[in-house]
Amino acid sequence: MNTKSSDFLEIERKFLVEELPVLADAIRVSISQGYLTETEDSVELRLRRADDARILTLKSGWGMTRKERNVALEPAQFDLLWPETEGRRLQKDRWIGPLPGGLRFELDIYHGALAPLRVVEVEFASEQEARRFVPPAWFGAEVTDDARYGNRVLVTAGLPEGE
Amino acid sequence: MNTKSSDFLEIERKFLVEELPVLADAIRVSISQGYLTETEDSVELRLRRADDARILTLKSGWGMTRKERNVALEPAQFDLLWPETEGRRLQKDRWIGPLPGGLRFELDIYHGALAPLRVVEVEFASEQEARRFVPPAWFGAEVTDDARYGNRVLVTAGLPEGE
Repeated sequence: MNTKSSDFLEIERKFLVEELPVLADAIRVSISQGYLTETEDSVELRLRRADDARILTLKSGWGMTRKERNVALEPAQFDLLWPETEGRRLQKDRWIGPLPGGLRFELDIYHGALAPLRVVEVEFASEQEARRFVPPAWFGAEVTDDARYGNRVLVTAGLPEGE
Repeated sequence: MNTKSSDFLEIERKFLVEELPVLADAIRVSISQGYLTETEDSVELRLRRADDARILTLKSGWGMTRKERNVALEPAQFDLLWPETEGRRLQKDRWIGPLPGGLRFELDIYHGALAPLRVVEVEFASEQEARRFVPPAWFGAEVTDDARYGNRVLVTAGLPEGE
C-alpha cells in the first residue's frame, strides 16, 4: 500500500478468494474509506484511513490500468472532508503478503454490510507482467473488469448477487 | 475570501457588471483555478491558488445556496493534484471591496479565453438577507441561477452567447 504522496498508473488484477491462505507472513492494515464522488462521476475521489495514514486518492479510468494520484492528508484536512462521504463508506481488513516472483497480494476482508466478501488484488509494474501472472490455487474467479466489485460501486450497490 | 480550512453553507448572489466601480477601496487577488471534476458530476472539486494560498474546495448543489468545504493545501499537495485539472482551468483577478450595510463585493475580471467577462458576487449570512439585497447601479443582470455563468461551466463551455 502506498501511503506517501505520489502519482502513478495503477496496473492490477483482482480476484475473488477461493480459500484463505496462511497469513503468517502477512501484515494486517485496518482500512476505513469513503467516497466524495458518486459512482457515475467522471473521476473517483476517495478518502482512506489506513491505520494512522490518511490519504486522498483521485482515480480515473476503469479495469486493469487506472490513473491514480495519492495525497497524504493531515488529520484536520481529512476530518473536514470525511463527513461528505456519508452513505458511501466501507471498512475492511487488508492483509498484505508475499507471492512468488517478488509479487505481493493484498487480501481484503470486508466488514459490515459487505461481509463476507473477500477480494484479493495483485499490482504489477507493467501490463505485460500483469498478463503473464498465473494466480495461485487459493485465488478464485477474476473480477478485474467486473464493475460490481469496484469499491465505489460496492458502497452503494452492496454485495453482488450470489455473494 | 476564505483561505482557511472551513465548511459552511455558501449563500450568494451573482450579477453581471454594468460598469466598473471605483476600486480605490478594493483589494486585488490574482486567482488561478482548475477543476478535478466534470460539469456533469455530482460534486465540484476545485483547486484554487489565490495569491499564495492554495485551497481545495468541495461544492455540492446549485444556485443561491451551495454547500462548500474548503481545505487549505500545502504546495506539494496542490502540485500533485493540479495536473489533473488540465483543460478545465481559468484565471481571473478578483477585486474585493465594500458595499453599504457591511456587505462586500467580489468582482471577478476574467483573463484569457473568458475575457472580457466580468461578474460580481455578494455573499450573505442568511437567505433572508440575500433576498433583501438591493444591487447598486453598477451591477448588471442577475445570473445567480444561470448555470452558464458557473465557473465550472465557463472553463469548458466558454463565454455565454452575447457576452
